Amino acid sequence: MESMRTLTGEQNLVAVMKGVGELRVEERAVPEPRPGEVLVEVASVGVCGSDVHFFEHGRIGLDVVQPPHVLGHEVAGRVVAHGDLVPGPAIGARVAVEPSRPCGTCRVCRIGRYNLCPDMRYFSAPPMDGAFARYVTAPASFAFEVPDSVSDDAAALIEPVSVVLYAGRRTGIRAGDRILIAGAGPIGLLMAQVARAMGATRVIVTDTNARRLALAAETGATDTVDVSKTRPQDAVPEVDAFIECSGNPAALTSGIECVRRAGRATVIGMSPEQTAEVPMAVMQAREIDLVPTFRFANVYDAAIELVASGAVDPTAIVTGHFKLEETERALRAGRTDPTSVKPIVRPWA
Amino acid sequence: MESMRTLTGEQNLVAVMKGVGELRVEERAVPEPRPGEVLVEVASVGVCGSDVHFFEHGRIGLDVVQPPHVLGHEVAGRVVAHGDLVPGPAIGARVAVEPSRPCGTCRVCRIGRYNLCPDMRYFSAPPMDGAFARYVTAPASFAFEVPDSVSDDAAALIEPVSVVLYAGRRTGIRAGDRILIAGAGPIGLLMAQVARAMGATRVIVTDTNARRLALAAETGATDTVDVSKTRPQDAVPEVDAFIECSGNPAALTSGIECVRRAGRATVIGMSPEQTAEVPMAVMQAREIDLVPTFRFANVYDAAIELVASGAVDPTAIVTGHFKLEETERALRAGRTDPTSVKPIVRPWA
Amino acid sequence: MESMRTLTGEQNLVAVMKGVGELRVEERAVPEPRPGEVLVEVASVGVCGSDVHFFEHGRIGLDVVQPPHVLGHEVAGRVVAHGDLVPGPAIGARVAVEPSRPCGTCRVCRIGRYNLCPDMRYFSAPPMDGAFARYVTAPASFAFEVPDSVSDDAAALIEPVSVVLYAGRRTGIRAGDRILIAGAGPIGLLMAQVARAMGATRVIVTDTNARRLALAAETGATDTVDVSKTRPQDAVPEVDAFIECSGNPAALTSGIECVRRAGRATVIGMSPEQTAEVPMAVMQAREIDLVPTFRFANVYDAAIELVASGAVDPTAIVTGHFKLEETERALRAGRTDPTSVKPIVRPWA
Amino acid sequence: MESMRTLTGEQNLVAVMKGVGELRVEERAVPEPRPGEVLVEVASVGVCGSDVHFFEHGRIGLDVVQPPHVLGHEVAGRVVAHGDLVPGPAIGARVAVEPSRPCGTCRVCRIGRYNLCPDMRYFSAPPMDGAFARYVTAPASFAFEVPDSVSDDAAALIEPVSVVLYAGRRTGIRAGDRILIAGAGPIGLLMAQVARAMGATRVIVTDTNARRLALAAETGATDTVDVSKTRPQDAVPEVDAFIECSGNPAALTSGIECVRRAGRATVIGMSPEQTAEVPMAVMQAREIDLVPTFRFANVYDAAIELVASGAVDPTAIVTGHFKLEETERALRAGRTDPTSVKPIVRPWA
Repeated sequence: MESMRTLTGEQNLVAVMKGVGELRVEERAVPEPRPGEVLVEVASVGVCGSDVHFFEHGRIGLDVVQPPHVLGHEVAGRVVAHGDLVPGPAIGARVAVEPSRPCGTCRVCRIGRYNLCPDMRYFSAPPMDGAFARYVTAPASFAFEVPDSVSDDAAALIEPVSVVLYAGRRTGIRAGDRILIAGAGPIGLLMAQVARAMGATRVIVTDTNARRLALAAETGATDTVDVSKTRPQDAVPEVDAFIECSGNPAALTSGIECVRRAGRATVIGMSPEQTAEVPMAVMQAREIDLVPTFRFANVYDAAIELVASGAVDPTAIVTGHFKLEETERALRAGRTDPTSVKPIVRPWA
Repeated sequence: MESMRTLTGEQNLVAVMKGVGELRVEERAVPEPRPGEVLVEVASVGVCGSDVHFFEHGRIGLDVVQPPHVLGHEVAGRVVAHGDLVPGPAIGARVAVEPSRPCGTCRVCRIGRYNLCPDMRYFSAPPMDGAFARYVTAPASFAFEVPDSVSDDAAALIEPVSVVLYAGRRTGIRAGDRILIAGAGPIGLLMAQVARAMGATRVIVTDTNARRLALAAETGATDTVDVSKTRPQDAVPEVDAFIECSGNPAALTSGIECVRRAGRATVIGMSPEQTAEVPMAVMQAREIDLVPTFRFANVYDAAIELVASGAVDPTAIVTGHFKLEETERALRAGRTDPTSVKPIVRPWA
Repeated sequence: MESMRTLTGEQNLVAVMKGVGELRVEERAVPEPRPGEVLVEVASVGVCGSDVHFFEHGRIGLDVVQPPHVLGHEVAGRVVAHGDLVPGPAIGARVAVEPSRPCGTCRVCRIGRYNLCPDMRYFSAPPMDGAFARYVTAPASFAFEVPDSVSDDAAALIEPVSVVLYAGRRTGIRAGDRILIAGAGPIGLLMAQVARAMGATRVIVTDTNARRLALAAETGATDTVDVSKTRPQDAVPEVDAFIECSGNPAALTSGIECVRRAGRATVIGMSPEQTAEVPMAVMQAREIDLVPTFRFANVYDAAIELVASGAVDPTAIVTGHFKLEETERALRAGRTDPTSVKPIVRPWA
Repeated sequence: MESMRTLTGEQNLVAVMKGVGELRVEERAVPEPRPGEVLVEVASVGVCGSDVHFFEHGRIGLDVVQPPHVLGHEVAGRVVAHGDLVPGPAIGARVAVEPSRPCGTCRVCRIGRYNLCPDMRYFSAPPMDGAFARYVTAPASFAFEVPDSVSDDAAALIEPVSVVLYAGRRTGIRAGDRILIAGAGPIGLLMAQVARAMGATRVIVTDTNARRLALAAETGATDTVDVSKTRPQDAVPEVDAFIECSGNPAALTSGIECVRRAGRATVIGMSPEQTAEVPMAVMQAREIDLVPTFRFANVYDAAIELVASGAVDPTAIVTGHFKLEETERALRAGRTDPTSVKPIVRPWA
């Protein structure tokens, strides 16, 4: 591991969650890549709503943070060292890092649904540390080289683009489709862009936040509906599919009611509740399948292609940049700044 | 329409619903087959739970009976006359009659989902009359000839076999699968048989009725669970798919919780409620798709094959035969006879 | 049929094929729309390679022209009269006419594959007359209204757009895919555009005609390969799917060899031979499915959406306009004018 | 690895191919299971046609044997030792061993198509040694425990059952289907059984060998056709799918011609030729997809279920048992004994 020499004596800087609402930047040893891994010098890390939720509440559902813990899983950087036996990206390669570390041998891994691996380890999902740091290691096979046309921020945001591309595939979005999306947060906004890239010709986004609806209209939506003023069922034509990105139970029901016969309803958004009420009589009469998604699998390469080709621009939702020392401010931006959508932490800035 | 001559002067006998809980057998003119139709001399008509519900309540959801109305849609008989231009089954052919009359030209008809046709006419579904009668007409293309190995009763029950075969296909049952079925009524019982015919090697049926569970065990289930005594989650191994055939909201939730990662939950059973509560957090974490089914499409031929080959025997659930004049008793059998599962009306007996 | 009054006394003008290579414009009675049909005043008719082949050879495979016969099946116009019982497009509506008239009741019609209907009647396919005429009738349900953003020429070319959109769906083109297309004729050129609209980020078109490759590069291809100079296997990266649009047997083999593991090869192009040689050892080792397509089904509405939204512009391949009296010149343009790609006949010009 | 102590000092016996047509039984060290592996005491090994071909010709296509080489990949036995970190089957467990060792991290592995892994290692496929031996090691995750209802021979033959079950899934065999199978060798015979287990109600097997056709009729086929006497197109009704198991180019063509519209043709059999001629005009007119299969993925568990439940009995094709020292005779049985179908080597007999 010759290349590590250049790192000798260097320290990693890591933004560590010390408790609910508490964050501190610490020096730690630069991690050493194990066989099959690469060491990545982190360039950009996106702040995800789940990071914010973990930071504010210490948990999401059954996932509980045991501090000290490191958040951050939307990550891009540059390969600076290799573990043994790595045929992956070369030293110096710019990479988008898929946060997944599935076991690779269980039933769901083998059938291609590795996102459901019961032994999955995933950046920032307890107990695995995340990427608000100057250096992280990653499996070489999950470090995807990106071309120059993909900026560091865009490379970090390949992660949420993957979430929505995977959902779009599970939804079976087809060229010429009409798609309804509930929620104009980062996921809903990117979903609109990706739906367009998949050929949807009508993409309707609903929310109650006028500013976000305006951003949706600028970045991919053909129509927006302010559901604080209008019920979607009244404003929206029958759609081929509905994609729930808001986590709002009412949005789930009203969205499904807009789906036409033989259509689909996909659920990305997570509600705080364990159960959901769905309009089953309508679903039965129209045979609307309900398709929940969990993270993603097998889409990082295609997501990079879409961004590299310009079909999707995830940086359109970036609203601020923060140093590693400002990670806490980045995590609080959603509360303090009404214009914040997607903050980015740049550990070397 | 030469063959009609033999019917000249003959009258049809029809069991007519005159109001909620009121039935009377009447003489009516023998219907004349229109172009593309055949006239069927009815041999057997199964009594479906929906017939019973219409009879007792006058409605199911938004479907309201306007008496006089004729119930009955599980129907088999013999072709006795042709309308013009009929290349369908010959005079004398024994047929299972698919009750569907879709428009054939709308979007869903064209994509092969004709069961969702908004202009569907279906035996016994208001306002279209059903088949508790000596003669009915049907589109020649929906009158499927059956071989001698399929009895009249079995031919009538091709309809509920089609319901479950269609559900089995939408579920994606595969050879070697473990399938959980909630409800040991006619649909659940036939679902168990068809799941076995599709290659499922473990078929677990739940109910609270010990007699019906015993029948399930005799006719297809490899395991039964009395859910008045045991929670299915405690008794059942993880299954590849769950199929709800009971209409019971609690069964829906507990059944979904038994499904393993990347599995499916299919809903045939109709609850009186418009909405249903589903365990969304579990569905998301495991990506369990929820697949509602409505009647069926494109399976009558395969259902006949399964019955003709002996792989499925729907007569195993027949519990009584009734004359046309006894149709009301047949409709009340479920209330009056605890052993009743599937009564059959034989209009010429 | 009140609206017909305005046509009283008017004559239809029809370009009639009187024999191989013989065409004459004749007056015929304006056809009367039957129940369920509309009468269309034809605005634009595209010339398809199959029209040219019928005109020059009198046959394609087993389909033999019995003159007098009318060619032309890429047709758009305006509804000017209704038969009885028509809930379709209103009088005055501009429509793209799907040339299909399937039976609607056979097995393949019912499963949604009506393009395979053994009783299909299709504009210009013997013995059914086509649309090089001022008026044609069509089933109302196959006359699709188009918005103003779709020109008459574009509306006529919804037909070939449907051919390639259907092929793209059968291929399973996904956003981010790399697609190889053999042949830069009208179908290959439109296939490239539609592949892009479906999200393919790399679309490689091969041909031996430099002018057509240049047109491909202008209208959708990201890469072109002149296969008179370079073997595609040497020039092309591994692709997710290959789509044969040239009818050239050598192109089929070399194209399949460029497909990566688990990919697909789709065949639109028709060769004069009844059989084809395929690289089976490669197909087995990589499990490359071979997917032939025949016309299309269930895509006219989506094709219109793609054109209306600007995602696909079929008029980019239009190379000339001809009066009805010039139909023979339009059919010969491919031989006489090396720049000709897609001639359009305008019966009222 | 405590359990290994019992093996101290013991030697492995291995039947080693020393050259084309040369085999010698040798003593070798018992292999030591690496982390994640188990050591299996081999009970039964089936002789596959590919073993015979390697033995007789030293190669199959591009796969060339470099002697010394060990053949045999249909293998079952008992776990007698564990490598480190093995949560797989316990010591003493009876197992069917899937011969696959895919890399687990490449694109095709991740999408669930690990049979196409370019770095696949597979028992007996050069350069990896096979299982004609008393002991082999295997990844714990590919050693599938079998219940007592599965005999050692049956457990060994889970491998060819997996080949055909996988092909049946890729074919999309559905309950009620009519399936045509070319070739009544071990694969064709098992394909017939598995097609029945998947619910096919009509299974037609063709061959030129009357004895094998009789075996087909005894073990799963509903119909057999001796194609030395009758062309299949003349004897066979239109089928939903055709599965080529003979490797005979003529069978491929005639079989495809028996497939009905929208059907499928699957190719398991390997011909000595690199290319194959297919009836493309028919395939296009009927949209018959051509689906090649290569080994299998993700079916060992379901194959075990089918055998354990009695739905499939692979021992019905076993025609002889051989000691390890008789492996050469087992490999030559197909040439010397016209009744031989599937010889089994029992290394401890």
